[in-house]
Amino acid sequence: MLEPDFDKAGGLVPVIAQDAASGEVLMLAYMNRQAWEETLRTGEVHYWSRSRGKLWHKGGTSGHVQRLKSLRLDCDRDAVVALVEQVGGAACHTGYRSCFYREIGRDGADAECSPKVFDPEKVYGPGA
Amino acid sequence: MLEPDFDKAGGLVPVIAQDAASGEVLMLAYMNRQAWEETLRTGEVHYWSRSRGKLWHKGGTSGHVQRLKSLRLDCDRDAVVALVEQVGGAACHTGYRSCFYREIGRDGADAECSPKVFDPEKVYGPGA
Repeated sequence: MLEPDFDKAGGLVPVIAQDAASGEVLMLAYMNRQAWEETLRTGEVHYWSRSRGKLWHKGGTSGHVQRLKSLRLDCDRDAVVALVEQVGGAACHTGYRSCFYREIGRDGADAECSPKVFDPEKVYGPGA
Repeated sequence: MLEPDFDKAGGLVPVIAQDAASGEVLMLAYMNRQAWEETLRTGEVHYWSRSRGKLWHKGGTSGHVQRLKSLRLDCDRDAVVALVEQVGGAACHTGYRSCFYREIGRDGADAECSPKVFDPEKVYGPGA
């Protein structure tokens, strides 16, 4: 089966999660082989958390899972696009729909470009 | 000005090039500070080529430059989306519109999902 070249990539490949319906890029995270296999087996996107050093079932805490529609592999097999349905409507732990919620124009001015969907304190608890 | 945290990211951040009109994800490459600044200064996307170890003006050889529309920064400031107009209609050196031209469905079956726009031999010469 077609799969990333985990050996070439040092075990981890960057994964772009894209909303399958709107085309909005939601986040970028990483998969190792285990995350890739769990994603295909379960139909919900799993990543490898580099900061926590463990498998990360996205939405396992918040309920905001990413239902897998398809996976796309690039020409070098060292990057992935995951087309997903984002349950809860927000991928970012800050409550924004997309982690990429800040946009910089050609003139250098910045603005918000993705709506805030939830209050992190209400989903993760105070201090989140 | 808002910019990636190049120090945290070891000098390089992953950059997702996305077609500004269609929303198709075209490729993933990397920027260092110099590439980021050249992109904003010139309005054409520059990357840092990890394989060649030098600044890479995308399309400098083929003419298939990426005209910058805007840059988006993620919550951690360690990943970027570049919204672009892809001159020539293809981002991939293989001639496909997107480097992500292979799709794997939930059933594990793969198929092409992006059209071939040009013949690499005609753009880069024989043996390309």
